[in-house]
Amino acid sequence: MDYRQSGVDIDAGNETVRRIKGFAKSTFTPGVLSAIGSFGGLFRLGTDYRDPVLVSSADGVGTKLKLAFLSGRHGTVGQDLVNHCVNDILVQGAVPLFFLDYLATGKLSPDVAAQVIEGVSIACRENGCALIGGETAEMPGFYHAGEYDMAGFIVGVVERDRLITGERLRPGDALIGLRSSGLHTNGYSLARAIVFDHLGLDVNAEVAELGCTVADELLRVHRSYLPLMRPLLDAGLVKGLAHITGGGITENLPRILPPGVAARIDTSAWTPNAVFRFLQRAGSVPEDDCYRSFNMGIGMIVGCAADDADRVLAMLQGAGETRAAVIGTIVPGEPGVLYGSL
Amino acid sequence: MDYRQSGVDIDAGNETVRRIKGFAKSTFTPGVLSAIGSFGGLFRLGTDYRDPVLVSSADGVGTKLKLAFLSGRHGTVGQDLVNHCVNDILVQGAVPLFFLDYLATGKLSPDVAAQVIEGVSIACRENGCALIGGETAEMPGFYHAGEYDMAGFIVGVVERDRLITGERLRPGDALIGLRSSGLHTNGYSLARAIVFDHLGLDVNAEVAELGCTVADELLRVHRSYLPLMRPLLDAGLVKGLAHITGGGITENLPRILPPGVAARIDTSAWTPNAVFRFLQRAGSVPEDDCYRSFNMGIGMIVGCAADDADRVLAMLQGAGETRAAVIGTIVPGEPGVLYGSL
Repeated sequence: MDYRQSGVDIDAGNETVRRIKGFAKSTFTPGVLSAIGSFGGLFRLGTDYRDPVLVSSADGVGTKLKLAFLSGRHGTVGQDLVNHCVNDILVQGAVPLFFLDYLATGKLSPDVAAQVIEGVSIACRENGCALIGGETAEMPGFYHAGEYDMAGFIVGVVERDRLITGERLRPGDALIGLRSSGLHTNGYSLARAIVFDHLGLDVNAEVAELGCTVADELLRVHRSYLPLMRPLLDAGLVKGLAHITGGGITENLPRILPPGVAARIDTSAWTPNAVFRFLQRAGSVPEDDCYRSFNMGIGMIVGCAADDADRVLAMLQGAGETRAAVIGTIVPGEPGVLYGSL
Repeated sequence: MDYRQSGVDIDAGNETVRRIKGFAKSTFTPGVLSAIGSFGGLFRLGTDYRDPVLVSSADGVGTKLKLAFLSGRHGTVGQDLVNHCVNDILVQGAVPLFFLDYLATGKLSPDVAAQVIEGVSIACRENGCALIGGETAEMPGFYHAGEYDMAGFIVGVVERDRLITGERLRPGDALIGLRSSGLHTNGYSLARAIVFDHLGLDVNAEVAELGCTVADELLRVHRSYLPLMRPLLDAGLVKGLAHITGGGITENLPRILPPGVAARIDTSAWTPNAVFRFLQRAGSVPEDDCYRSFNMGIGMIVGCAADDADRVLAMLQGAGETRAAVIGTIVPGEPGVLYGSL
């Protein structure tokens, strides 16, 4: 008996590693010391930091992956993974340094793995984040044929005195919403139940209300807010940042609220992307559940002093973000979100 | 329709997070700034480093997880995960700073998740490595009932001039083998094929030759070599380190060999743990394949100057590692492993 007979294809593994190496190399930044293939990835931090805080996050793509399986389009989920991680450390003021991925499947397809990792590398380049390591695991019997799971891990850095925590948010501060591109990477179990189980749609079905196919809509890439936020962070205009992921505005915004304040959100201040109203109506999802399950069109919320709100909006609009808007305000109360007009 | 109807149990998620928080907190070291629940984990690097290099690695437990599923013993796979990662950065001279985990399952069991993460936290404490983040994903339809997958991400640090690369290895240098506890986390697809498919053994079957049950043997915890290696690294005695993982000595030792040298390994210098001979015989695995699929009793190989070998062995034995031995030497040649007597 040898390894191949036990279900592990060493040649497929080597071919995959060969292809991944090229993608990884395309992301390397000056800090990278190692070539892929060392036991660990090496990143030289440099000595320019006064008091560096490393900010890290681990995440997956969740059941959005099922859309990639159904449509055979594997090129974007890696971008979702990276951008989600970038946003998760951005909200503490950190810029990304490096990224590692984990990709697990039952039977390794070098073609599919290459599409996935190419997506990772595209987003890494866009975010100036080096892909310096990862693991591709072939695990016979763990995953359904043609399926896989993936996780990403990011490390970024911020000077300690530039950490963004939300702790300085006070009543009267403004909450500015940045638009999402769609579902991002959350709410997919519910969305799939509505679209596939309840409506019985095919992944390639055109949906008039959305102006595209199910796959086009549900595979839209999770936005990275790094390019928009970096100038605002450099200008010291940001008191708090919330990445609106699983749990929606309802559960994510309170994570940055200090004791004694709540967030009032005016849901009339923006129009959710068509996909959210489509899912809400088709699934008869109660309004409350929508704001707890989906981002409803807001992927990032910026908290700033009321006096700075116009400047923040002007900077965002100058960067092409014309739909950014004040969507709420900080009020006295216990940490939580109150929906209603301002 | 709401989230629970789509197969995601928010209460189970909250209960899991609650339990994980306690385990994570038990691992915190002075560098940790954040509580779990922030978007990203925060680790203050400090300013004592002259030229810090961050060394990172991502890994999984592979199909060793099937042993946990079959036996219902979920307390050790988290230790395997952490120790594997610790060793992967140790071989470049790095000591661990922090760890993040990814745990994915079809239907979340807070009890199982807690057992797994408690294992992670035990090994994190043993290695002085803070568990500062992670993701627990419930993905209906992705995993078989009662199954899960996990990945780990580690970041450590080493001064740039203390990096261990193997590049200074020269003909005549000694290779010292450190014993493994068993299969560690590699070779499980082959081992399971032999034990379960070929021999038809039950996971709880006693195996006389092993003196324990199948589960006892195949769940032995992957050793961390950090406690043994740290004094040797501090003393500057180490020229190269190879962690013997998937691919065995045959594929891992060459990863640290510079051009112009090969490794000669004397397989008579140690007796493999009984489990390796048991698997080899039961599966009629060719000798070559054994050294490419399993660690064969050697989990870490230390390369040092021949003149330092006695001192290294004395330090290891002083630390209780009485079975460490010279198992090979560096010779002229192209990077690769030559098996035979010295």
